[in-house]
Amino acid sequence: MLTRQQDAFGQAMYDYLHRGDGFEIIERDDGFFSVGGGPQTYFIPHGQWPAHQREAIRHARGRVLDVGCGAGRHALYLQERGLEVVGIDISPRAIEVCKRRGLRHAHVLSVTRVSRRLGIFDTIIMMGNNLGLLGNPKRARWLLRRFRAMTSCEARIIGESRDPYVTETPEHLEYHEFNRKRGRLPGQLRIRVRYKKLVTPWYLLFSQDELKGIIQGTGWEVETFIDGEAGMYVAILRKVA
Amino acid sequence: MLTRQQDAFGQAMYDYLHRGDGFEIIERDDGFFSVGGGPQTYFIPHGQWPAHQREAIRHARGRVLDVGCGAGRHALYLQERGLEVVGIDISPRAIEVCKRRGLRHAHVLSVTRVSRRLGIFDTIIMMGNNLGLLGNPKRARWLLRRFRAMTSCEARIIGESRDPYVTETPEHLEYHEFNRKRGRLPGQLRIRVRYKKLVTPWYLLFSQDELKGIIQGTGWEVETFIDGEAGMYVAILRKVA
Repeated sequence: MLTRQQDAFGQAMYDYLHRGDGFEIIERDDGFFSVGGGPQTYFIPHGQWPAHQREAIRHARGRVLDVGCGAGRHALYLQERGLEVVGIDISPRAIEVCKRRGLRHAHVLSVTRVSRRLGIFDTIIMMGNNLGLLGNPKRARWLLRRFRAMTSCEARIIGESRDPYVTETPEHLEYHEFNRKRGRLPGQLRIRVRYKKLVTPWYLLFSQDELKGIIQGTGWEVETFIDGEAGMYVAILRKVA
Repeated sequence: MLTRQQDAFGQAMYDYLHRGDGFEIIERDDGFFSVGGGPQTYFIPHGQWPAHQREAIRHARGRVLDVGCGAGRHALYLQERGLEVVGIDISPRAIEVCKRRGLRHAHVLSVTRVSRRLGIFDTIIMMGNNLGLLGNPKRARWLLRRFRAMTSCEARIIGESRDPYVTETPEHLEYHEFNRKRGRLPGQLRIRVRYKKLVTPWYLLFSQDELKGIIQGTGWEVETFIDGEAGMYVAILRKVA
């Protein structure tokens, strides 16, 4: 669970919900700063989602766990469609926002604390770069085995990320080189969000190939990739038979 | 003169001129981050300036020095009105932008390097918070005496700043307290601009009262203050008779 000081992302969404403003500054661990789409991005209705997200969400069925549910845009859409959805987020402010917006099951909970106590799920969604919550290969394997134990046989994981190699921006190519030099996967992107005096812990992103490597031996396999624009993609994972 | 790595502000304006995008992240020295109006702010035409700026610029006459000319919005306006304008800026990229936009006299030069070699001026403008370039009281006195020696008898300084006390934002009030504790003027605001991997040196802002204290004994006095919104103001300084 994030402390008040770490809840930059959630506080920005909270301020956006209550006052209509807010912003999102992205800091990479090489000192590269940029401005994100802002909290309004996390509130956009289904009709305005990118096509690959609309296609991906059609794979959701049964009882759904939304990992890193943010302002609840995916969870609320599925709930409105009649599915039972449980949203979890490490951000207390995000969960406040979800509840305020009408999400019936929303808990402040780290992905590392999920268990069968939440019940059995048919779908786990990790949208909006949340595949990166799988973290490093070791943690990813541990989490995916855990997901296996708390899902039905026909379960799917619908996870979104962004391929960091789809870029020609010199600063991004430099960053890949910087990663190689420190012995990391070149595209492993370490970022955090700043909002006023708040700053989140670091997050990771990775590419489709890196994902394929990470999930080997976890009992999950890639059913399909759904590609979006600018390197965005959704992976649909199913259980190995 | 700013190094390439420090020229965050200028590079953002340069990118805006050439590609139509860019952003401006403001970092305060207590770790408070915000997003500025962005480089487009520095290109807006006279008709869209805030009212207090339009009123202030009417005080410009004769030969004009624009200190910290940025993308040249004030200098170009005055040049179009037939005044002779010399723009200086510490940012090489800003001066490139000014030249590209048609400013005839534009030099990469720190305010601390101005001298009579630039000729004699009837007006010195320091718009858009550039009064803060006067820096601390000691530097301000030294600079204002220097300005006195390179201006005509009837000269005016038209300088803009923002009163840091006009706020009820808790983070800003906390900052005033933070300043008191470290023995500074409460409203003395230490900020820098980040853009991608570039980061400027620190800048200062101060209030009208602080300005009045600072200019005592420099041979300049406040003729009038022109107030804008949200604590923005322009000071018109004239020579003490």
